[in-house]
Order: sequence, then structure tokens, then C-alpha cells
Amino acid sequence: MASIQDISVAAAVNTLSAVVFLLAFAILRLQPINDRVYFPKWYLKGIRGSPTRSGAFVSKFINLDFRTYLRFLNWMPAALRMPEPELIDHAGLDSAVYIRIYLLGLKIFVPITALAFAVLVPINWTGKSLESSKDLTFSNIDKLSISNVAPGSQWFWAHMGMAYVFTFWTCYVLFKEYKIVANMRLRFLAYVNRRPDQYTVLVRNVPPDPDESVGDHVEHFFCVNHPDHYLTHQIVYNANKLAKLVEKKKGLQNWLIYYQNKYERKPATKPTMKTGFWGLSGKKVDAVNYYTTEIEKLSKEEAAERERVVGDPSAIVPAAFVSFKSRWAAAVCAQTQQTSNPTIWLTEWAPEPRDVYWDNLAIPYVKLTVRRLLMAVGFFFLTFFFIIPIAIVQSLANIEDIEKVLPFLKPLIEMKGVKSFIQGFLPGIALKIFLILLPTILMTMSKIEGFPSLSSLERRSASKYHIFLLINVFLGSIIAGTAFQQLHTFLNQSPTEIPKTFGVSIPMKATFFITYIMVDGWAGIAAEIVRLVPLVMFHIKNTFLVKTDQDREQAMDPGSLNFSASEPRIQLYFMLGLVYSVITPILLPFIVVFFAFSYMVFRHQIINVYDQKYESGATFWPHVHRRIIIGLVVSQLLLMGLMSTKGSKQLTLFLVALPVLTIWFHLFCKGRFESVFVRFPLQDAMVKDTLERATEPNLNLKAYLQDAYIHPVFKGGKFEQAAAIDEENYNLLVPTKRSSQKSSKYGSGHGSDIGA
Amino acid sequence: MASIQDISVAAAVNTLSAVVFLLAFAILRLQPINDRVYFPKWYLKGIRGSPTRSGAFVSKFINLDFRTYLRFLNWMPAALRMPEPELIDHAGLDSAVYIRIYLLGLKIFVPITALAFAVLVPINWTGKSLESSKDLTFSNIDKLSISNVAPGSQWFWAHMGMAYVFTFWTCYVLFKEYKIVANMRLRFLAYVNRRPDQYTVLVRNVPPDPDESVGDHVEHFFCVNHPDHYLTHQIVYNANKLAKLVEKKKGLQNWLIYYQNKYERKPATKPTMKTGFWGLSGKKVDAVNYYTTEIEKLSKEEAAERERVVGDPSAIVPAAFVSFKSRWAAAVCAQTQQTSNPTIWLTEWAPEPRDVYWDNLAIPYVKLTVRRLLMAVGFFFLTFFFIIPIAIVQSLANIEDIEKVLPFLKPLIEMKGVKSFIQGFLPGIALKIFLILLPTILMTMSKIEGFPSLSSLERRSASKYHIFLLINVFLGSIIAGTAFQQLHTFLNQSPTEIPKTFGVSIPMKATFFITYIMVDGWAGIAAEIVRLVPLVMFHIKNTFLVKTDQDREQAMDPGSLNFSASEPRIQLYFMLGLVYSVITPILLPFIVVFFAFSYMVFRHQIINVYDQKYESGATFWPHVHRRIIIGLVVSQLLLMGLMSTKGSKQLTLFLVALPVLTIWFHLFCKGRFESVFVRFPLQDAMVKDTLERATEPNLNLKAYLQDAYIHPVFKGGKFEQAAAIDEENYNLLVPTKRSSQKSSKYGSGHGSDIGA
Repeated sequence: MASIQDISVAAAVNTLSAVVFLLAFAILRLQPINDRVYFPKWYLKGIRGSPTRSGAFVSKFINLDFRTYLRFLNWMPAALRMPEPELIDHAGLDSAVYIRIYLLGLKIFVPITALAFAVLVPINWTGKSLESSKDLTFSNIDKLSISNVAPGSQWFWAHMGMAYVFTFWTCYVLFKEYKIVANMRLRFLAYVNRRPDQYTVLVRNVPPDPDESVGDHVEHFFCVNHPDHYLTHQIVYNANKLAKLVEKKKGLQNWLIYYQNKYERKPATKPTMKTGFWGLSGKKVDAVNYYTTEIEKLSKEEAAERERVVGDPSAIVPAAFVSFKSRWAAAVCAQTQQTSNPTIWLTEWAPEPRDVYWDNLAIPYVKLTVRRLLMAVGFFFLTFFFIIPIAIVQSLANIEDIEKVLPFLKPLIEMKGVKSFIQGFLPGIALKIFLILLPTILMTMSKIEGFPSLSSLERRSASKYHIFLLINVFLGSIIAGTAFQQLHTFLNQSPTEIPKTFGVSIPMKATFFITYIMVDGWAGIAAEIVRLVPLVMFHIKNTFLVKTDQDREQAMDPGSLNFSASEPRIQLYFMLGLVYSVITPILLPFIVVFFAFSYMVFRHQIINVYDQKYESGATFWPHVHRRIIIGLVVSQLLLMGLMSTKGSKQLTLFLVALPVLTIWFHLFCKGRFESVFVRFPLQDAMVKDTLERATEPNLNLKAYLQDAYIHPVFKGGKFEQAAAIDEENYNLLVPTKRSSQKSSKYGSGHGSDIGA
Repeated sequence: MASIQDISVAAAVNTLSAVVFLLAFAILRLQPINDRVYFPKWYLKGIRGSPTRSGAFVSKFINLDFRTYLRFLNWMPAALRMPEPELIDHAGLDSAVYIRIYLLGLKIFVPITALAFAVLVPINWTGKSLESSKDLTFSNIDKLSISNVAPGSQWFWAHMGMAYVFTFWTCYVLFKEYKIVANMRLRFLAYVNRRPDQYTVLVRNVPPDPDESVGDHVEHFFCVNHPDHYLTHQIVYNANKLAKLVEKKKGLQNWLIYYQNKYERKPATKPTMKTGFWGLSGKKVDAVNYYTTEIEKLSKEEAAERERVVGDPSAIVPAAFVSFKSRWAAAVCAQTQQTSNPTIWLTEWAPEPRDVYWDNLAIPYVKLTVRRLLMAVGFFFLTFFFIIPIAIVQSLANIEDIEKVLPFLKPLIEMKGVKSFIQGFLPGIALKIFLILLPTILMTMSKIEGFPSLSSLERRSASKYHIFLLINVFLGSIIAGTAFQQLHTFLNQSPTEIPKTFGVSIPMKATFFITYIMVDGWAGIAAEIVRLVPLVMFHIKNTFLVKTDQDREQAMDPGSLNFSASEPRIQLYFMLGLVYSVITPILLPFIVVFFAFSYMVFRHQIINVYDQKYESGATFWPHVHRRIIIGLVVSQLLLMGLMSTKGSKQLTLFLVALPVLTIWFHLFCKGRFESVFVRFPLQDAMVKDTLERATEPNLNLKAYLQDAYIHPVFKGGKFEQAAAIDEENYNLLVPTKRSSQKSSKYGSGHGSDIGA
């Protein structure tokens, strides 16, 4: 058990590393040369241009104004200054609501921390149970935890009361927040400008018809069954192969530019390359010529494939985007069942064009259910048995084997320092790689499950990742065993025994989790803001690939909030806070610092850096809510487990009502709010329709929707250009608050649509 | 452990009692005086009249044609003769599908029985494990069960294989049956004639409006949000008090008729009565006069209340039946969300007028969720702790206490025979009464939960009853403990230990369940057909209350299939069959006999006796399907538990895939079929609308729907008469098959609407 001294040292080290990251950020971001790494969002918006002002050549790359370095923390108030409505305008609702998760953490834990320190810490301190028992080693931290209260003490009633108070407070804040976010979403949907998805329904599993093409079949079906409302439809092509060709061509073009640049800088030597495996073998050729011909070949191939896809009826997938004359009709079609067989003509509210995941639109029902079954089984094994293949890899990956397989590495490995380093490093490396790859693996599994939009894929992956973290990181750390051993525990212990097993270990793990919060939470978040990987990547691209300003635009990697990987990690902090709030309140300030610091960092990031790929209108909030409820219930069960070893049965029974009430609260909130995030209410649709009919009676909706849902590979550059110009004109002509909000939202949508 | 001899004796006794019941039925049903007890359905249909043909006076009451007695079992082929489409015409889809549950039992268990006897019985018989172990008492029955195979034997692989075969067969039959029933329902909905519920949506939780009445508010809302489709609406009055008055008046009228009849038969003595408590105390008055004045008083009160309800705005509940111009529009409104707050303006497909449960239409959302929570907690305690209050009542209910409280019973109780009888009888009586009252208690709980239709109430009660039977009867019988003890087991044993505990006891309980099947299944079903209670009640009413033929019509109690109480009992047989199919196949023939016999009896009953109160179109089938799946999964888990004590771990692991596949199959079927039972697909609605527009262009739908959803107490006799005449005319004029089907369905709907 770590003492307060140990914790202080860890805190100092981690605070120091966080400060180092912050200083690095403060210095790096002030250099004009890094401007596109730390402020890409403003470039994408067209507000900031390349630094072209006259001045010394050096000042184009390095900031020589030393006064600015003195105010190296002034990004913090700047990040907090932008008001929320403007933030929604600027970064989208998804981002604005995402950072509210951190705010929610503060709202929950600041009062809980205050109460816990006022009530529970003094009680624990005066418990003196640990001092009287001499055979236990204990530290001052433990004196502040529930362990210090003697078993059977009447003081536990205070802890029980606090458990109720904390639960009610958490539920109250959750309810308020759900209400706020639901209203934000409704306002967003009400004020956002015309978007194609408002009129459009995604129809999947169109049944095959021997006499008609998919397009005709869709048109006839909706003409008959929605006669007054059907407007038009767009069929979906299976352009996966074409997309691959386009992707490949892009890569080749990058290499061509690289060699062209090289040639231009050193016109004396023509750059050469080898055509074989990874440029390591094969015959030497002129690189520029080689890539030019390769690209030409590929262009022809691409054109042929493009023609084949458009011409071949078998390239049309049995899905379509059907558009209606009004939002009301689209809402009706999305929410109703079309035929008596609920596995064909499946309709749902179309995701916005950028959000569509094109590969998954054509999976028949039976295949889909089989895939879901396989992925459920796969996820079970991944969660509980992932350690087995990793152990096998570890046992294989010893230095002797590597030398045998890759003999040319032998001289390198045999160097003294390297060998010992590798030997110390190898055992952990397979696990590290696995944990880094895990979000990608889970995303792939979700893709196999067949969700049709990126946002739903992210939500699904996040659910999986959350379960994995809960079992392997949270519970795994508490009883310090692999998930496989835990499965054994789950199966062979009684339902009342399991929380006991975990409950008893919890107070002992407080110091471990405090260190975890500081390493992963404090220092990790500070590292986030430095953006080390994008910084390096940008400078590499900038050096080798950039010729024009447009190239530089492309070299920027603004990144985006990665909901599927980062949200479950936040949930871990909620869980830790809720579990330890009653047991070891000393952990709470660390959580509060994490939430406050993250809130600031991510607010800065979404203002200046991230560029969201799509806008789902905060549809993820019900998931966030549900996971906090899961954390709450887990914390209550573990507390019951701990109590059953500590006090009388009355205390445990007294707690039984808590999870029941919490789950009921969850169901209540679900019924009250969830549908706002799933469906488009008819009343709201009708209001928008009526308004539009009054203000724009001559709108040509059909033309507007004609090309809205086209596979990105079919989109030429001209769409992009047109949209961008249109947006800016609009902004200049009608610079009212609301319209600029709308147009910027829609404009940025188009912009990154093509970028994707 | 019972031997084969014991079983044979039990079988003989129960078969005998079944035969006695059948003989009694055969004799009683041939007496013309009992005609209305055994064939009430035909009277209600107007096809059979009172026996008014000329002949001996005696032959009006007793059948003297002795030849008919010889063919006393000929109701059986008669019951099977009616083809299914005609049965649906005659008795409704609900009844026709209900008896398919028994048919499903036959389809599942006849092949399973054959296979089990061909494969498993020989293997078990040759196991000889029981003979070699000498310290166990065993019988021949056990020799045929899995207990006879030595632990660790390779023969268990045959049992495992059969478990897979049985599961796949059950799933296959379930899938086919789900498909058939779904098609039956679709055909029924497609061919049934115009019904008010096709055009109507039940709107609940209309938000209060300070400026408008509920009616205006509803009209304005739907005029705005469904502008082209809204037709009319009917507000709902809170007529609960009025309904009570009407009920009370009916009771008084019965007494009046009773005394009038008495007076007519004995004009010499004027009948008198006492006005006090239960006619036991108070002053003597002239009965006819007393009741006449009482009824007059009540009539006035009723009229006043009727006026108050119609005139007072506060008597209008915030719910309404909103009708649309087409089925399509009603389907749209029922399936969509109206406003951004999903707890107001709740729309759902209206139940048919007879099916509405009027008391539950006005419960606000928060109240509803609180009620559900309370009922869930209540049901938990009812299931696991019901034995506690019963034990308390039993301890109180001793003879001395009864004598103290009710001293006037003392002389009766002190009689020798009576006293010993009561002493032997009392301990069990509280439990018996509880079990008899249980379905009513569960129905009351479901009513508190706020479901708006009788059919949904029945389904909900059935779910509760099924869980109660599963835990207290099935599992309770296996480990022979109270549910309270079981709860203790569940909480304190590990998830792998629980199936083991049950699994080990299962083979030993086979004889108990065989006896149970014979008593409850064979003899119980035979008792059902005699209809003892309705028989007695009819003759009492016939003697004292009947004056005219119309009175006699009212004295008939055709009864109806009681889904909420009887379906869960069938499920018990499915569960027994599935559990024992691998373990003790000798139980299977008893199950098969039960299903075959019940099928015949209930087919006879729905043809000749039962009159359904409403027609839900077999919406209960998904519940039936789900419960059989539950039985299947329970049987698999118990088999795993048994196997883990019998053989190696391989066998148990081999079975793990079974529940996973079964649950996946359930989800697959749910996705594939369930929505047919919940929603009205737009395509089907559109087809019916188009057809109607073509055949009846001048239909006055508004007039047709005007009074469809009126609280039954507001319905005068004239509605009934009009409908009945209309129906018969229609039948005579257009005697094609389809139209008569439609009209009869609609007509019978109206008829019993008023009767209820």
C-alpha cells in the first residue's frame, strides 16, 4: 500500500510531465510554421490563410516576438471564452455536446467531493480501526478510507446515507443534463438550414424483382404507397472496387509529386527507384516516368470501372435513398413499416451524406443476423480470452526466433545495448500493440455487423470498448487477474459472492487508481494537446509533398474527436469516481482535476483543431447516459459487496433499493428523452415544412436533392468548388447570425465530404 | 421413487376419472334442458333457438331417444370436422390460433417421442448403472432414464446429439408455426370487413391547454399535423362512477325479477325481505315495492350522473380516439411520434371497441412509470415471498379463534365430524384460495400498470403467471422447497452450481410430474368439458330469474378462453416435455396424450361454447413463441447442470452452443415476424384503401365512425338492435362466403359489445 509520500511523488512526476507538455505546446503553437498543426480548423473555415505578410523570412517560420512566450497559458481562458451557441456554430453540435461530458463530470463530482470531504473523511479518520489492529500494514491514505471504520460500527449508516445522497445527486444532474442536451438537439434540428437528410429515407433490402430494375422497383413501390409525397430517389452503386482504385491512384500521385519535387530541387540527378517489393529489390527505373505511366494506366482502369459500375445493373445494390416532397412525409416513411414482411423495404431516417458508410448498405436480413451472432460470440471471446493469443505470441517472440526468421537483423540485435533493451521490452510489446489496435479491431467488428452510418458504427464500437474496459481494466485491476480468471470467478461464485470478492479489494486499489488517473488522465490529456504525431506527419509532408498552397491544405491533418475510443475512457473515470466516492473519497479531487483539465483542453481542441467528419446531432447522448448509469449500478453493487463483509446484514439490505431505483430512473429517462435522439417528430417536421412553403414557395427541391447522395468517388472537384463559393457569397450577402450558422454548417459539410 | 406399478395405478385412476367426466358430459349435453349450457355459441349466433318443437312435455327437458346415448363419444370427430377457415369465421382468429398451441405441442412432441423411444430408451435400458450400485433404491422407470447410464460413459454423446436434434426440431417447428400464424393474421386483416379500429388511433396523454377543451385541442392538433388525413375524433368520458351505478341497478333488477316471479307463482303471500345487512337484519318490507322504489331512485341518480358526465369538462379524460380518412393515414399516425416530447400525444393503433379497457385511458406518464416500478417490486415479492402471509394466515386460522370471532358458528363447529374435517382442511385452505385467486391478483396488478386494452392486459397477466408457475411450480417442485428458499439458492450459489442443483434432482422427479400431468392435464381437461359451474349457475338463474326468452339468453354464460390463466399452464407442459425429452423419455407419451386430448376438447369448446369478448387477431402469438423458447433454454441449462455431474467437462462444453443458438433463433424470429403482430404495414393499408375507394366511392365514413368508440354505458339498446338487423339483411342479400364472414365478425362484435 502506497503512503501519502508515494502518491505525492507520483503526483509531482505526472504534474511535471503535464507541465512539460503544456510548455512544449505553448512554444510550438506560437511558431508560424506549426500554425497549420495547431489551428487547422481556422484554415478549413477559410478564415486564416498562410502567413504571407511581409517581414523577415525567418519570422515566417519562427516566432521571434518573445513577449508572446510569457503568456504561455493564455490559451486556457481563450478556450473558455467562446459562448456555447457560437461553439455549436463553429464546431458542430456533436463536438459541443461531447465536451459537455466533461462538464457533466464536474457537475457530478464537485459537490460530491465537497460533501465527501465534509462528512465521510472525518468519520473515516476518527475510525481508528486500522491503528488498533497491528498485523496490517496501512498508510495514511487508508486512514481516510472506509477501511479505517471498525466492522459493525454504527458510523456506516453515514456512508449508506451518503451513498443515497450521491446516487440522487448523480441522477438529478443526469436528468437535467439529458433535458438540456435533448433541447439543444431539438433547437439544432429546428434552426439548422435545409439538409438533404431531412427529406430523405434510407431504404434497405429492396426485394429483387425479375421484371424491373432496382430503380424502377423503388420508384413504383413508393409511388403506390406514398402517392402524394414521393419525390425522387437515388440508387446506390457498389463502388467499393472503384473506391479502392481511386485510393491507390492517390497514393501513386503522392509518390509522383515526391519525386518531381526531388527532381526540381536537384535537377542534376534524375531520381530513380526499384520496382520490386517495398522498393528494396527489382530493377532500377526512372521514378517520375514510372509513376506517370502507372498513374495513366490506373486512370484508364478507373475510367473503365467507372463506366462498368454505372452501366452494369448488377453493380446496383438493393438499397436506395428515397426523397420526399416534405420533411413530414420523410419522417412518416422513416418511422413506419412498409410491408408485412419486416425484413424487406426497411426504411430509416437517412444519415447525412457525409455520415453514410457505403459498404454496408446491401446486406440481406439473414446474413445480417448471422453476422451479429458471430460478432457477439467473437466479442465474448475477445473480452475474456484475448490474453491467450497474446501469451502465445509472447512465447514465440524471443530473440533467437527473430534472428532465425530475419537473419539480416542479426548484427543489429547482437549489439549489447539493443539486445538487453529488446529482451526487457518484448514481453510487453504484444499486449501494448493489441491495446493500441483494439479500437480498430472493435470498429472492424462493428463494420461487419452492418451498420449503415459512421455515427452508428462509432456508437457501437464505443459500447464494445466500454465493456472491454469495464471488465479488463476496471474489474481486472481490482482483483488483479486476467479476464479469463474473472470469467471463472463469475461462473463459480454466487451472485452475492462476486460483489464481495471485488468489494473487499476495492479500498486497497485506491492508490493504484490514483496513479492511473494521473498517468492516463493528467499527462495523457496534456500530451493530446501537443499533437505530436500530426506535428511530425505535417512537417514530413510539408517537406516532401507540398508544392502549392492547396497541397499544404491537404497535408494538414486536423483529426477529429474519436468518439468510439475516447468516450469509453471517460466513462472509466466516471466509474472510478462513483465507486470511490463513498469508499475512498481522497480519490475524488484527482477525478475533478481530470475533468476540469480535459474540459479545457478539448474545448481548445474543438475550437482550433478538430474537424468533425460528420454531424449526427448528438445522437450519442443516450449511450453516454446509459454508461454512467451502468457505472452507478456497478458502484452500488460493489458497495453492497463491501458492506456485506463489513457490517450487519441490515446495511446491505438497506442498499438493495438503490440499484432498483437507479435502473428505474434509467428506464424513466429512456422513455422521456431517448426518442428525441432517434426519430424526427411530425410536429417539428410540419412546422419546418410550413415555414419553408411560406418563405420559399418556388423552391426546386428535386434539383436540390438530385445529387445529394452520390458515392464520394463519383463526385468531381466541381461540386466542392461550387459549394465553397456559394457559401462565401451567402455569408457576405446575408450576414445575419442565423443564416450564417446554417450556411457554415452546410458548407463545411460539403467541404469535408469531398475531403473524405 | 414410484415404480411402474404405482404409475399404472395413478394412470388407471386418472383415466377413469377422465372417462367419468366424459360420460357425464355425454349424458348431460344430450338433455335439451342443458342445451344452452353446452351449445351457447349457436344461440348467440342466432342459429339455434329454444326447443319449441311440439312433442311430449318431458322431451323438452330430457332426451328420451336412447340411441343417441350409444354414440356418446361422437362429439370428438364432430369437433375435428370443421375446417380451419370456417373455424376462423365461426369463432374468430384468436380462438383458432389458441388451439393451434395444442397442435404445436403435438407437432413438436410426437416426433421427439418417437426418436427418444427409438434411440435413448434402449441406451438407458442397457446402461445398468443402477443395478450395479446397490445402495440406491430404484424402479423400472429409473432404468429408462438417463440415471441408468454410468457417469463418464461414452453413451452420453447420444444424449447430447439428441439434445441438438430435439432443439433443432423444436426451432424448426416453431419457425414454421410462426410463419403460418403470421400469414393467418395477415389474411385475416386483409379479408376482414371494415372495422372502426382500422381507421382509428388511440391518443393518450393529451397535454392540458388552458384555453381549449380537450376535444378542441385534439382537433386542432391533428388538423395541423395530419392536415389531409384527419377526419374526426371521439373524446373519452370518465364514466367509472356511472358504470358502477349501472352495474348496481342491474343487480337490483335481478332481485326485483326474483321476487316478482316468486309472487306470481304464489300470489297468496306477498314476498317480504329485511333491508339490513345481507338481508339478515333490519325491518321487514314488501320486497317488490322496496326494489321498485330503489330502482327508481337509482335511475334518477344515474340520469343525473349521466348528465353530469356529458356536461362537465372535468369528466373528460385527456385521451381521445382520433379517426382518419384512410387506413393508411391511421397506420401512419399510430406508428409515428407526434411531438418532441415522447410522453405526450402518445398514439397507438386503437384496440377494437370491445377490447378497450376504459379505466386506464387517462394515466399520465410519470404516474405510469411509478406504477410499473411498484408492480415490478410487488411481483417480485409475490413470487418469492407469497408463502409468508399464507403461513401467517394459516397460523391464525385455528378453530378456537374462529369461534371467538364468530360466536354464532360455535354450535356448528363443535359438531364432531365437522370439527375434525375443518381441522384437517384448514392448513391447506389459505394456499388453495391464494392459488385460485392468483390469476385475478395478477390481472389486477396488470390493470394498475395501465394497459389500455383487455387483450394487452391478458398478455401481461399471462407473462406474470408464467414466471410464477416456472419458479414456484416447476423449479419449486424439483428441489421441493419454497420459492423463498430458492431465492436463497439463487443468491448464494454460483451460476454453474444452480443448474447442477436442479439438474441432479430432475430425473428423480419424473414420476411426480407424470402424476401431475395425469391429474391436472387429463382429468382437469375432462372436467373442463363438463362445465360444472356454468351448468349449476344456469339452472339456478333459469329457476329464479327467467321469465322471457330474452332473460334465458342473459342467463347463459358461454364463458371464453381465459388466455391469461390457461396459456401459462400449457407452457408448463411444453417445459416438462422439453426438459424430460432427453432425461426421462418415458414422460413424453403422457405429454402427447395431454396435447391431443386438450386439442379435441378445446376445439369442441370454441365451436360450441365459448364466446370471445374481443378479437385481437392472434396478437398473443409472439408471447407463446417466446415462452416456448424460455422452456427450451431452461431445459438446456438444466441438462448442462445434470451433465456436469455425470460426465466429463467436454459434454457440458459441447452443450454451451445450444442456448446461444436458441436465443439467436429467437431474436431472428422476433425480427422476422413480430412486427406483423404489432403494426399495420402501409402497403396492406394502401391496398385496402384503394379497393374500398373503388368499390364504395360514396361511403360516409364519418357517420360510420361517429359512435364507434363510445363508453358501453352510453350505448342504448337501439344500437344493438340496429346492428343485428343490419347484419341479417346483409347476410341474406349478399350470401357470398367472404361477405358473410366479414359481416358475421362485425356483427358478433357489436352484439357482445353491448352484452359486456
